[in-house]
Amino acid sequence: MQKLNVMERLNKVIRRTNSRVVAGLDPVLSEIPDCEEYRKLTDRGVLMETYCHDYIKAIAGIVPAIKINSAFFEAEGLTLEYFEVAEMAAKAGMIVIGDLKRADIGSTSGAYAKAYLKADSPFSIITVNPYFGTDGVMPFIELANQNEKGVFVLVKTSNQSSIEIQDLILRDQRKVHEAVADMVKHWGNISNPTEDGYNNVGAVVGATHPDDARRLRQRMPNTFFLVPGYGAQGATAEDVVVNFDKNGLGAIVNSSRGLMNAYKHPRWKDQFSEENWAEATTAEAKRMTEEINKALHIL
Amino acid sequence: MQKLNVMERLNKVIRRTNSRVVAGLDPVLSEIPDCEEYRKLTDRGVLMETYCHDYIKAIAGIVPAIKINSAFFEAEGLTLEYFEVAEMAAKAGMIVIGDLKRADIGSTSGAYAKAYLKADSPFSIITVNPYFGTDGVMPFIELANQNEKGVFVLVKTSNQSSIEIQDLILRDQRKVHEAVADMVKHWGNISNPTEDGYNNVGAVVGATHPDDARRLRQRMPNTFFLVPGYGAQGATAEDVVVNFDKNGLGAIVNSSRGLMNAYKHPRWKDQFSEENWAEATTAEAKRMTEEINKALHIL
Repeated sequence: MQKLNVMERLNKVIRRTNSRVVAGLDPVLSEIPDCEEYRKLTDRGVLMETYCHDYIKAIAGIVPAIKINSAFFEAEGLTLEYFEVAEMAAKAGMIVIGDLKRADIGSTSGAYAKAYLKADSPFSIITVNPYFGTDGVMPFIELANQNEKGVFVLVKTSNQSSIEIQDLILRDQRKVHEAVADMVKHWGNISNPTEDGYNNVGAVVGATHPDDARRLRQRMPNTFFLVPGYGAQGATAEDVVVNFDKNGLGAIVNSSRGLMNAYKHPRWKDQFSEENWAEATTAEAKRMTEEINKALHIL
Repeated sequence: MQKLNVMERLNKVIRRTNSRVVAGLDPVLSEIPDCEEYRKLTDRGVLMETYCHDYIKAIAGIVPAIKINSAFFEAEGLTLEYFEVAEMAAKAGMIVIGDLKRADIGSTSGAYAKAYLKADSPFSIITVNPYFGTDGVMPFIELANQNEKGVFVLVKTSNQSSIEIQDLILRDQRKVHEAVADMVKHWGNISNPTEDGYNNVGAVVGATHPDDARRLRQRMPNTFFLVPGYGAQGATAEDVVVNFDKNGLGAIVNSSRGLMNAYKHPRWKDQFSEENWAEATTAEAKRMTEEINKALHIL
Protein backbone atom coordinates (compact mmCIF):
# COMPACT_ATOMS: atom_id res chain seq x y z
CA MET A 1 0.00 0.00 0.00
CA GLN A 2 1.41 3.32 -1.05
CA LYS A 3 1.47 5.85 1.76
CA LEU A 4 -0.17 9.23 1.34
CA ASN A 5 2.25 12.11 1.18
CA VAL A 6 2.02 14.64 3.98
CA MET A 7 -0.10 17.17 2.08
CA GLU A 8 -2.64 14.49 1.15
CA ARG A 9 -2.61 13.39 4.80
CA LEU A 10 -3.32 17.01 5.69
CA ASN A 11 -6.26 17.05 3.23
CA LYS A 12 -7.55 13.88 4.88
CA VAL A 13 -7.45 15.39 8.37
CA ILE A 14 -9.11 18.54 6.97
CA ARG A 15 -11.97 16.38 5.68
CA ARG A 16 -12.20 14.47 8.96
CA THR A 17 -12.34 17.61 11.12
CA ASN A 18 -14.19 19.57 8.42
CA SER A 19 -11.90 22.46 9.36
CA ARG A 20 -9.45 24.43 7.20
CA VAL A 21 -7.91 26.23 10.16
CA VAL A 22 -4.33 25.86 11.38
CA ALA A 23 -3.97 27.06 14.95
CA GLY A 24 -0.84 29.17 15.31
CA LEU A 25 1.06 29.03 18.57
CA ASP A 26 3.27 32.09 19.23
CA PRO A 27 3.60 31.99 23.03
CA VAL A 28 5.02 34.96 24.97
CA LEU A 29 5.57 34.19 28.66
CA SER A 30 4.80 37.72 29.82
CA GLU A 31 1.46 37.64 27.99
CA ILE A 32 0.19 34.28 29.21
CA PRO A 33 -3.32 34.71 30.67
CA ASP A 34 -3.39 35.47 34.39
CA CYS A 35 -4.84 32.20 35.71
CA GLU A 36 -4.63 30.74 39.19
CA GLU A 37 -3.00 27.56 37.92
CA TYR A 38 -0.25 29.46 36.08
CA ARG A 39 0.52 31.76 39.02
CA LYS A 40 1.68 28.72 41.00
CA LEU A 41 4.30 27.80 38.40
CA THR A 42 7.69 29.32 39.15
CA ASP A 43 9.68 27.39 36.51
CA ARG A 44 9.53 29.23 33.18
CA GLY A 45 9.82 26.05 31.13
CA VAL A 46 7.00 24.39 33.05
CA LEU A 47 4.83 27.48 32.65
CA MET A 48 5.51 27.49 28.92
CA GLU A 49 4.67 23.81 28.53
CA THR A 50 1.56 24.03 30.70
CA TYR A 51 0.17 26.97 28.76
CA CYS A 52 0.94 25.33 25.41
CA HIS A 53 -0.60 22.06 26.60
CA ASP A 54 -3.81 23.90 27.48
CA TYR A 55 -3.80 25.56 24.06
CA ILE A 56 -3.38 22.19 22.34
CA LYS A 57 -6.22 20.70 24.40
CA ALA A 58 -8.43 23.66 23.43
CA ILE A 59 -8.04 23.06 19.69
CA ALA A 60 -7.37 19.29 19.38
CA GLY A 61 -10.06 17.49 17.39
CA ILE A 62 -11.41 20.82 16.13
CA VAL A 63 -8.63 21.92 13.78
CA PRO A 64 -6.45 19.61 11.65
CA ALA A 65 -3.09 21.27 12.26
CA ILE A 66 -1.01 23.46 14.54
CA LYS A 67 1.80 25.81 13.48
CA ILE A 68 4.31 26.29 16.26
CA ASN A 69 6.59 29.30 15.90
CA SER A 70 10.16 28.66 16.94
CA ALA A 71 10.97 32.37 17.45
CA PHE A 72 8.87 32.62 20.60
CA PHE A 73 10.63 29.65 22.19
CA GLU A 74 14.05 30.93 21.13
CA ALA A 75 13.19 34.34 22.62
CA GLU A 76 12.65 32.71 26.01
CA GLY A 77 15.64 30.37 25.70
CA LEU A 78 13.20 27.43 25.74
CA THR A 79 14.18 25.47 22.65
CA LEU A 80 13.95 22.06 24.32
CA GLU A 81 10.37 22.95 25.23
CA TYR A 82 9.76 23.71 21.55
CA PHE A 83 10.17 20.02 20.79
CA GLU A 84 8.23 18.92 23.89
CA VAL A 85 5.26 21.05 22.85
CA ALA A 86 5.45 19.73 19.27
CA GLU A 87 5.41 16.17 20.67
CA MET A 88 2.28 17.00 22.69
CA ALA A 89 0.54 18.30 19.57
CA ALA A 90 1.56 15.27 17.49
CA LYS A 91 0.22 12.96 20.22
CA ALA A 92 -3.03 14.92 20.17
CA GLY A 93 -3.43 13.83 16.53
CA MET A 94 -2.66 17.10 14.81
CA ILE A 95 -0.38 17.65 11.83
CA VAL A 96 2.43 19.71 13.37
CA ILE A 97 3.99 22.51 11.33
CA GLY A 98 7.33 23.86 12.55
CA ASP A 99 7.36 27.55 11.71
CA LEU A 100 11.11 28.04 11.35
CA LYS A 101 11.70 29.97 8.10
CA ARG A 102 15.19 28.48 7.87
CA ALA A 103 17.52 28.33 4.85
CA ASP A 104 21.24 28.64 4.15
CA ILE A 105 23.79 27.19 1.73
CA GLY A 106 23.30 23.46 1.14
CA SER A 107 25.54 22.01 3.83
CA THR A 108 23.95 24.23 6.47
CA SER A 109 20.40 23.64 5.21
CA GLY A 110 21.23 19.95 5.59
CA ALA A 111 21.97 20.55 9.27
CA TYR A 112 18.71 22.49 9.73
CA ALA A 113 16.83 19.70 7.92
CA LYS A 114 18.36 17.13 10.25
CA ALA A 115 17.23 19.21 13.24
CA TYR A 116 13.56 19.33 12.26
CA LEU A 117 12.77 16.73 9.57
CA LYS A 118 14.47 13.57 10.78
CA ALA A 119 12.29 10.46 10.98
CA ASP A 120 11.42 10.79 14.68
CA SER A 121 10.83 14.56 14.61
CA PRO A 122 7.40 15.63 15.88
CA PHE A 123 7.19 18.09 12.98
CA SER A 124 5.50 16.89 9.79
CA ILE A 125 6.13 20.05 7.78
CA ILE A 126 8.40 23.07 8.28
CA THR A 127 8.52 26.52 6.70
CA VAL A 128 11.56 27.34 4.55
CA ASN A 129 12.93 30.57 3.01
CA PRO A 130 13.68 30.47 -0.77
CA TYR A 131 16.33 33.24 -1.05
CA PHE A 132 19.27 30.82 -1.52
CA GLY A 133 17.59 28.99 -4.42
CA THR A 134 17.59 25.26 -5.24
CA ASP A 135 20.72 24.11 -3.41
CA GLY A 136 19.58 25.84 -0.22
CA VAL A 137 16.11 24.28 -0.36
CA MET A 138 16.76 20.75 -1.68
CA PRO A 139 18.31 19.37 1.54
CA PHE A 140 14.99 20.07 3.24
CA ILE A 141 12.94 18.53 0.43
CA GLU A 142 15.17 15.45 0.17
CA LEU A 143 14.96 14.65 3.88
CA ALA A 144 11.22 15.42 3.85
CA ASN A 145 10.76 12.92 0.99
CA GLN A 146 12.73 10.30 2.83
CA ASN A 147 10.68 10.67 6.01
CA GLU A 148 7.21 11.33 4.54
CA LYS A 149 7.34 14.93 5.64
CA GLY A 150 7.04 18.22 3.76
CA VAL A 151 7.96 21.89 3.51
CA PHE A 152 6.13 25.16 2.98
CA VAL A 153 8.36 27.54 1.03
CA LEU A 154 7.76 31.28 1.48
CA VAL A 155 6.32 32.65 -1.76
CA LYS A 156 4.24 35.73 -0.88
CA THR A 157 4.22 36.63 2.80
CA SER A 158 1.38 38.34 4.65
CA ASN A 159 3.26 41.41 5.92
CA GLN A 160 2.96 44.88 4.37
CA SER A 161 6.62 45.14 3.37
CA SER A 162 6.37 41.89 1.41
CA ILE A 163 5.85 44.13 -1.63
CA GLU A 164 9.40 45.50 -1.40
CA ILE A 165 11.24 42.43 -2.67
CA GLN A 166 8.53 39.89 -3.43
CA ASP A 167 6.55 42.22 -5.73
CA LEU A 168 9.48 43.68 -7.67
CA ILE A 169 8.75 43.29 -11.38
CA LEU A 170 11.17 41.31 -13.50
CA ARG A 171 12.21 42.01 -17.07
CA ASP A 172 9.98 39.09 -18.13
CA GLN A 173 6.98 40.81 -16.42
CA ARG A 174 6.71 38.29 -13.59
CA LYS A 175 6.84 39.52 -10.02
CA VAL A 176 9.70 38.09 -7.97
CA HIS A 177 7.24 36.02 -5.93
CA GLU A 178 5.84 34.56 -9.16
CA ALA A 179 9.33 33.50 -10.16
CA VAL A 180 9.68 31.92 -6.71
CA ALA A 181 6.29 30.23 -7.21
CA ASP A 182 7.55 28.72 -10.48
CA MET A 183 10.59 27.35 -8.63
CA VAL A 184 8.47 25.93 -5.82
CA LYS A 185 6.26 24.23 -8.38
CA HIS A 186 9.33 22.80 -10.11
CA TRP A 187 10.84 21.59 -6.82
CA GLY A 188 7.60 19.80 -6.04
CA ASN A 189 7.34 18.26 -9.50
CA ILE A 190 10.87 16.89 -9.60
CA SER A 191 11.05 15.63 -6.04
CA ASN A 192 7.60 14.28 -5.46
CA PRO A 193 5.58 14.10 -8.69
CA THR A 194 1.83 13.61 -8.43
CA GLU A 195 -0.53 13.41 -11.41
CA ASP A 196 -3.26 15.05 -9.48
CA GLY A 197 -3.47 16.07 -5.86
CA TYR A 198 -0.69 17.74 -3.93
CA ASN A 199 3.03 17.11 -3.68
CA ASN A 200 5.00 17.64 -0.48
CA VAL A 201 6.46 21.04 -1.43
CA GLY A 202 3.90 23.62 -0.31
CA ALA A 203 3.88 27.40 -0.43
CA VAL A 204 3.26 30.18 2.07
CA VAL A 205 0.79 32.59 0.46
CA GLY A 206 -0.47 35.48 2.59
CA ALA A 207 -4.22 35.99 2.96
CA THR A 208 -3.69 39.75 2.89
CA HIS A 209 -3.09 39.75 -0.89
CA PRO A 210 -6.08 37.89 -2.40
CA ASP A 211 -5.37 39.02 -5.98
CA ASP A 212 -1.88 37.55 -5.80
CA ALA A 213 -3.27 34.42 -4.15
CA ARG A 214 -5.81 33.88 -6.95
CA ARG A 215 -3.06 34.06 -9.57
CA LEU A 216 -0.80 31.80 -7.52
CA ARG A 217 -3.55 29.19 -7.08
CA GLN A 218 -3.82 28.94 -10.89
CA ARG A 219 -0.07 29.00 -11.34
CA MET A 220 0.65 26.12 -8.97
CA PRO A 221 -2.30 23.69 -9.00
CA ASN A 222 -0.45 20.85 -7.19
CA THR A 223 0.95 23.05 -4.44
CA PHE A 224 -0.64 23.10 -1.00
CA PHE A 225 -0.94 26.61 0.46
CA LEU A 226 -0.27 27.65 4.04
CA VAL A 227 -2.18 30.92 4.37
CA PRO A 228 -1.22 33.34 7.15
CA GLY A 229 -2.72 36.80 7.68
CA TYR A 230 -6.31 36.03 8.71
CA GLY A 231 -7.69 37.88 11.73
CA ALA A 232 -5.12 39.95 13.66
CA GLN A 233 -3.31 40.75 10.38
CA GLY A 234 -6.55 41.88 8.71
CA ALA A 235 -7.67 39.28 6.14
CA THR A 236 -11.24 37.92 6.18
CA ALA A 237 -12.82 34.56 5.35
CA GLU A 238 -13.86 35.98 1.95
CA ASP A 239 -10.23 36.90 1.28
CA VAL A 240 -8.97 33.36 1.80
CA VAL A 241 -11.44 31.57 -0.51
CA VAL A 242 -9.18 32.04 -3.54
CA ASN A 243 -6.47 29.88 -1.95
CA PHE A 244 -8.57 26.70 -2.06
CA ASP A 245 -9.17 24.27 -4.93
CA LYS A 246 -12.65 23.49 -6.30
CA ASN A 247 -13.11 20.82 -3.62
CA GLY A 248 -12.37 23.29 -0.83
CA LEU A 249 -9.02 21.60 -0.17
CA GLY A 250 -5.35 22.36 -0.83
CA ALA A 251 -5.04 25.21 1.64
CA ILE A 252 -5.06 25.84 5.34
CA VAL A 253 -5.61 29.21 7.00
CA ASN A 254 -3.58 30.22 10.04
CA SER A 255 -4.68 32.26 13.01
CA SER A 256 -2.27 32.71 15.92
CA ARG A 257 -3.10 35.79 18.00
CA GLY A 258 -6.78 35.54 17.01
CA LEU A 259 -7.02 32.12 18.66
CA MET A 260 -4.58 32.62 21.55
CA ASN A 261 -6.17 35.93 22.56
CA ALA A 262 -9.79 35.10 21.69
CA TYR A 263 -10.83 35.83 25.31
CA LYS A 264 -9.83 39.49 24.81
CA HIS A 265 -11.88 39.92 21.63
CA PRO A 266 -15.15 41.92 21.83
CA ARG A 267 -16.85 38.88 20.32
CA TRP A 268 -16.02 36.70 23.32
CA LYS A 269 -14.92 38.84 26.24
CA ASP A 270 -18.35 39.08 27.87
CA GLN A 271 -18.77 35.33 27.64
CA PHE A 272 -15.35 34.11 28.80
CA SER A 273 -13.10 35.36 31.60
CA GLU A 274 -9.29 35.44 31.39
CA GLU A 275 -9.29 32.36 33.63
CA ASN A 276 -11.39 30.59 30.97
CA TRP A 277 -9.27 31.74 28.02
CA ALA A 278 -8.97 28.20 26.63
CA GLU A 279 -12.75 27.92 26.24
CA ALA A 280 -12.74 31.16 24.27
CA THR A 281 -9.99 29.69 22.06
CA THR A 282 -12.15 26.60 21.43
CA ALA A 283 -15.16 28.76 20.60
CA GLU A 284 -13.12 30.93 18.25
CA ALA A 285 -11.56 27.90 16.52
CA LYS A 286 -15.09 26.59 15.85
CA ARG A 287 -16.35 29.99 14.73
CA MET A 288 -13.41 30.54 12.38
CA THR A 289 -13.81 27.01 11.00
CA GLU A 290 -17.49 27.65 10.25
CA GLU A 291 -16.85 31.11 8.83
CA ILE A 292 -14.31 29.77 6.33
CA ASN A 293 -16.48 26.75 5.45
CA LYS A 294 -19.42 29.08 4.87
CA ALA A 295 -17.35 31.32 2.60
CA LEU A 296 -16.43 28.17 0.66
CA HIS A 297 -20.10 27.03 0.62
CA ILE A 298 -19.19 23.91 2.58
CA LEU A 299 -21.70 22.71 5.16
CA MET B 1 32.49 59.95 24.71
CA GLN B 2 30.53 58.51 21.82
CA LYS B 3 30.82 54.78 21.55
CA LEU B 4 31.96 53.17 18.33
CA ASN B 5 29.27 51.25 16.52
CA VAL B 6 29.85 47.53 16.18
CA MET B 7 31.21 47.64 12.63
CA GLU B 8 33.75 50.31 13.60
CA ARG B 9 34.64 48.15 16.61
CA LEU B 10 35.14 45.30 14.19
CA ASN B 11 37.43 47.49 12.05
CA LYS B 12 39.38 48.32 15.21
CA VAL B 13 39.89 44.67 16.12
CA ILE B 14 40.85 43.98 12.50
CA ARG B 15 43.57 46.61 12.78
CA ARG B 16 44.73 45.29 16.15
CA THR B 17 44.99 41.69 14.97
CA ASN B 18 45.98 42.73 11.44
CA SER B 19 43.66 39.98 10.24
CA ARG B 20 40.62 40.15 7.99
CA VAL B 21 39.57 36.58 8.68
CA VAL B 22 36.43 35.48 10.47
CA ALA B 23 36.73 31.93 11.73
CA GLY B 24 33.56 30.00 11.01
CA LEU B 25 32.44 27.36 13.46
CA ASP B 26 30.11 24.70 11.96
CA PRO B 27 30.65 21.79 14.36
CA VAL B 28 29.38 18.30 13.53
CA LEU B 29 29.73 15.85 16.43
CA SER B 30 30.33 12.84 14.20
CA GLU B 31 33.19 14.66 12.45
CA ILE B 32 35.04 15.94 15.51
CA PRO B 33 38.72 14.89 15.27
CA ASP B 34 39.51 11.56 16.86
CA CYS B 35 41.56 12.72 19.87
CA GLU B 36 42.28 10.89 23.11
CA GLU B 37 40.74 13.70 25.18
CA TYR B 38 37.49 13.65 23.21
CA ARG B 39 37.12 9.87 23.32
CA LYS B 40 36.76 10.08 27.11
CA LEU B 41 33.75 12.40 26.87
CA THR B 42 30.46 10.52 26.88
CA ASP B 43 28.16 13.54 27.24
CA ARG B 44 27.40 15.01 23.80
CA GLY B 45 27.00 18.55 25.13
CA VAL B 46 30.33 18.39 26.93
CA LEU B 47 32.01 17.01 23.82
CA MET B 48 30.54 19.84 21.75
CA GLU B 49 31.66 22.52 24.20
CA THR B 50 35.13 21.01 24.64
CA TYR B 51 35.73 20.84 20.90
CA CYS B 52 34.43 24.38 20.36
CA HIS B 53 36.53 25.64 23.26
CA ASP B 54 39.65 24.16 21.65
CA TYR B 55 38.71 25.79 18.33
CA ILE B 56 38.29 29.17 20.03
CA LYS B 57 41.66 28.79 21.78
CA ALA B 58 43.25 27.93 18.42
CA ILE B 59 42.14 31.17 16.76
CA ALA B 60 41.82 33.70 19.64
CA GLY B 61 44.18 36.65 19.27
CA ILE B 62 44.86 35.69 15.65
CA VAL B 63 41.53 36.53 14.00
CA PRO B 64 39.20 39.39 15.02
CA ALA B 65 35.90 37.53 14.83
CA ILE B 66 34.16 34.18 14.94
CA LYS B 67 30.96 33.23 13.09
CA ILE B 68 29.07 30.50 14.92
CA ASN B 69 26.46 28.67 12.88
CA SER B 70 23.28 27.88 14.77
CA ALA B 71 22.22 25.10 12.37
CA PHE B 72 24.92 22.72 13.58
CA PHE B 73 23.89 23.15 17.21
CA GLU B 74 20.19 22.81 16.33
CA ALA B 75 20.99 19.63 14.38
CA GLU B 76 22.44 18.07 17.54
CA GLY B 77 19.71 19.45 19.82
CA LEU B 78 22.40 21.51 21.60
CA THR B 79 20.99 25.02 21.50
CA LEU B 80 21.93 25.87 25.08
CA GLU B 81 25.51 24.98 24.15
CA TYR B 82 25.22 27.43 21.24
CA PHE B 83 25.04 30.28 23.73
CA GLU B 84 27.72 28.76 26.00
CA VAL B 85 30.14 28.57 23.09
CA ALA B 86 29.32 32.13 22.04
CA GLU B 87 30.04 33.27 25.62
CA MET B 88 33.42 31.53 25.49
CA ALA B 89 34.29 33.32 22.26
CA ALA B 90 33.17 36.71 23.60
CA LYS B 91 35.31 36.17 26.71
CA ALA B 92 38.26 35.34 24.46
CA GLY B 93 37.96 38.88 23.06
CA MET B 94 36.48 38.09 19.68
CA ILE B 95 33.57 39.82 17.97
CA VAL B 96 30.97 37.05 17.91
CA ILE B 97 28.71 36.71 14.86
CA GLY B 98 25.59 34.58 15.27
CA ASP B 99 24.98 32.93 11.91
CA LEU B 100 21.21 32.50 12.14
CA LYS B 101 19.73 33.77 8.84
CA ARG B 102 16.45 34.49 10.62
CA ALA B 103 13.54 36.69 9.47
CA ASP B 104 9.75 36.65 9.61
CA ILE B 105 6.90 39.16 9.86
CA GLY B 106 7.63 41.99 12.31
CA SER B 107 6.22 40.55 15.52
CA THR B 108 8.11 37.29 15.01
CA SER B 109 11.33 39.02 13.94
CA GLY B 110 11.01 40.93 17.22
CA ALA B 111 11.03 37.62 19.09
CA TYR B 112 14.09 36.42 17.14
CA ALA B 113 15.81 39.75 17.82
CA LYS B 114 15.11 39.37 21.53
CA ALA B 115 16.63 35.88 21.44
CA TYR B 116 19.96 36.96 19.97
CA LEU B 117 20.43 40.75 20.22
CA LYS B 118 19.38 41.59 23.76
CA ALA B 119 21.86 43.60 25.80
CA ASP B 120 23.48 40.62 27.55
CA SER B 121 23.63 38.39 24.46
CA PRO B 122 27.14 37.12 23.63
CA PHE B 123 26.43 37.85 19.96
CA SER B 124 27.51 41.24 18.63
CA ILE B 125 26.12 40.77 15.14
CA ILE B 126 23.71 38.27 13.58
CA THR B 127 22.87 37.34 10.00
CA VAL B 128 19.37 38.17 8.75
CA ASN B 129 17.36 37.21 5.63
CA PRO B 130 15.81 40.12 3.63
CA TYR B 131 12.89 38.33 1.89
CA PHE B 132 10.19 39.89 4.14
CA GLY B 133 11.38 43.48 3.47
CA THR B 134 11.59 46.41 5.88
CA ASP B 135 9.09 45.39 8.54
CA GLY B 136 10.69 41.96 8.82
CA VAL B 137 14.20 43.40 9.21
CA MET B 138 13.67 46.55 11.30
CA PRO B 139 13.00 44.74 14.62
CA PHE B 140 16.53 43.34 14.36
CA ILE B 141 18.06 46.70 13.44
CA GLU B 142 16.18 48.58 16.15
CA LEU B 143 17.27 46.22 18.93
CA ALA B 144 20.79 46.16 17.49
CA ASN B 145 20.90 49.98 17.64
CA GLN B 146 19.68 49.98 21.21
CA ASN B 147 22.31 47.50 22.34
CA GLU B 148 25.28 48.60 20.20
CA LYS B 149 25.01 45.48 18.09
CA GLY B 150 24.54 44.94 14.36
CA VAL B 151 23.21 42.75 11.58
CA PHE B 152 24.52 41.31 8.33
CA VAL B 153 21.67 41.09 5.82
CA LEU B 154 21.95 38.50 3.05
CA VAL B 155 22.50 40.31 -0.25
CA LYS B 156 24.38 37.94 -2.57
CA THR B 157 25.12 34.54 -1.07
CA SER B 158 28.08 32.33 -1.94
CA ASN B 159 26.22 29.23 -3.15
CA GLN B 160 25.81 28.31 -6.83
CA SER B 161 22.00 28.53 -6.82
CA SER B 162 22.16 32.10 -5.52
CA ILE B 163 21.76 33.12 -9.17
CA GLU B 164 18.24 31.70 -9.32
CA ILE B 165 16.47 34.40 -7.30
CA GLN B 166 19.22 36.86 -6.37
CA ASP B 167 20.37 37.40 -9.98
CA LEU B 168 16.96 37.69 -11.62
CA ILE B 169 16.89 40.88 -13.66
CA LEU B 170 14.29 43.51 -12.86
CA ARG B 171 12.41 45.73 -15.29
CA ASP B 172 14.66 48.60 -14.14
CA GLN B 173 17.77 46.52 -15.11
CA ARG B 174 18.91 45.93 -11.55
CA LYS B 175 19.45 42.39 -10.37
CA VAL B 176 17.27 41.37 -7.41
CA HIS B 177 20.32 41.35 -5.14
CA GLU B 178 21.14 44.92 -6.22
CA ALA B 179 17.63 45.97 -5.23
CA VAL B 180 18.24 44.25 -1.89
CA ALA B 181 21.57 46.04 -1.61
CA ASP B 182 19.81 49.39 -2.10
CA MET B 183 17.41 48.49 0.72
CA VAL B 184 20.23 47.41 3.02
CA LYS B 185 22.00 50.70 2.34
CA HIS B 186 18.79 52.60 3.09
CA TRP B 187 18.16 50.64 6.31
CA GLY B 188 21.68 51.50 7.46
CA ASN B 189 21.34 55.17 6.54
CA ILE B 190 18.04 55.71 8.32
CA SER B 191 18.77 53.73 11.44
CA ASN B 192 22.38 54.48 12.08
CA PRO B 193 23.66 57.31 9.86
CA THR B 194 27.41 57.81 9.58
CA GLU B 195 29.06 60.48 7.47
CA ASP B 196 31.96 58.27 6.75
CA GLY B 197 32.84 54.84 8.04
CA TYR B 198 30.41 52.02 8.51
CA ASN B 199 26.92 51.82 9.94
CA ASN B 200 25.66 48.79 11.86
CA VAL B 201 23.67 47.25 8.98
CA GLY B 202 26.13 45.09 7.09
CA ALA B 203 25.71 42.80 4.08
CA VAL B 204 26.57 39.20 3.27
CA VAL B 205 28.36 39.22 -0.09
CA GLY B 206 29.74 35.90 -1.35
CA ALA B 207 33.39 35.68 -2.35
CA THR B 208 32.45 33.35 -5.17
CA HIS B 209 31.04 36.21 -7.30
CA PRO B 210 33.82 38.86 -7.40
CA ASP B 211 32.22 40.85 -10.24
CA ASP B 212 29.03 41.26 -8.24
CA ALA B 213 31.08 42.08 -5.12
CA ARG B 214 32.98 44.85 -6.93
CA ARG B 215 29.72 46.49 -8.03
CA LEU B 216 28.22 46.07 -4.56
CA ARG B 217 31.27 47.65 -2.87
CA GLN B 218 30.71 50.78 -5.00
CA ARG B 219 26.97 50.68 -4.49
CA MET B 220 27.09 50.57 -0.69
CA PRO B 221 30.20 52.42 0.53
CA ASN B 222 29.12 52.58 4.21
CA THR B 223 28.13 48.93 4.44
CA PHE B 224 30.42 46.40 6.09
CA PHE B 225 30.67 43.10 4.15
CA LEU B 226 30.69 39.62 5.62
CA VAL B 227 32.28 37.53 2.87
CA PRO B 228 31.68 33.77 2.85
CA GLY B 229 32.86 31.38 0.15
CA TYR B 230 36.66 31.43 0.58
CA GLY B 231 38.45 28.06 0.63
CA ALA B 232 36.15 25.02 0.74
CA GLN B 233 33.61 26.87 -1.44
CA GLY B 234 36.24 27.81 -4.01
CA ALA B 235 37.07 31.53 -3.76
CA THR B 236 40.68 32.72 -3.47
CA ALA B 237 42.39 35.64 -1.71
CA GLU B 238 42.50 37.50 -5.03
CA ASP B 239 38.73 37.07 -5.36
CA VAL B 240 37.99 38.73 -2.03
CA VAL B 241 40.08 41.90 -2.55
CA VAL B 242 37.18 43.72 -4.23
CA ASN B 243 35.13 43.55 -1.02
CA PHE B 244 37.48 45.83 0.92
CA ASP B 245 37.70 49.62 0.98
CA LYS B 246 40.84 51.53 0.01
CA ASN B 247 42.17 51.17 3.57
CA GLY B 248 41.80 47.40 3.49
CA LEU B 249 38.88 47.58 5.92
CA GLY B 250 35.09 47.24 5.74
CA ALA B 251 35.04 43.52 5.06
CA ILE B 252 35.81 40.25 6.74
CA VAL B 253 36.35 36.93 5.00
CA ASN B 254 34.92 33.73 6.46
CA SER B 255 36.43 30.28 6.41
CA SER B 256 34.68 27.49 8.31
CA ARG B 257 35.60 24.05 6.97
CA GLY B 258 38.99 25.36 5.77
CA LEU B 259 39.95 26.22 9.36
CA MET B 260 38.16 23.42 11.21
CA ASN B 261 39.55 20.74 8.90
CA ALA B 262 42.96 22.32 8.23
CA TYR B 263 44.68 19.18 9.59
CA LYS B 264 43.23 17.17 6.68
CA HIS B 265 44.44 19.58 4.00
CA PRO B 266 47.43 18.51 1.86
CA ARG B 267 49.10 21.76 2.93
CA TRP B 268 49.20 20.70 6.60
CA LYS B 269 48.52 16.99 6.91
CA ASP B 270 52.17 15.93 6.91
CA GLN B 271 52.94 18.49 9.61
CA PHE B 272 50.02 18.00 11.99
CA SER B 273 48.31 14.81 13.17
CA GLU B 274 44.58 14.53 13.81
CA GLU B 275 45.41 14.69 17.54
CA ASN B 276 47.04 18.09 16.87
CA TRP B 277 44.22 19.44 14.71
CA ALA B 278 44.01 22.70 16.69
CA GLU B 279 47.61 23.56 15.83
CA ALA B 280 46.81 23.08 12.15
CA THR B 281 43.83 25.42 12.60
CA THR B 282 46.10 28.05 14.14
CA ALA B 283 48.62 27.67 11.32
CA GLU B 284 45.90 27.93 8.68
CA ALA B 285 44.33 31.01 10.35
CA LYS B 286 47.74 32.71 10.20
CA ARG B 287 48.35 31.60 6.61
CA MET B 288 44.92 32.77 5.44
CA THR B 289 45.39 36.08 7.26
CA GLU B 290 48.73 36.63 5.53
CA GLU B 291 47.42 35.54 2.15
CA ILE B 292 44.55 38.04 2.26
CA ASN B 293 46.79 40.82 3.60
CA LYS B 294 49.26 40.13 0.81
CA ALA B 295 46.51 40.27 -1.82
CA LEU B 296 45.53 43.65 -0.31
CA HIS B 297 49.20 44.78 -0.26
CA ILE B 298 49.09 45.10 3.52
CA LEU B 299 52.22 44.11 5.42
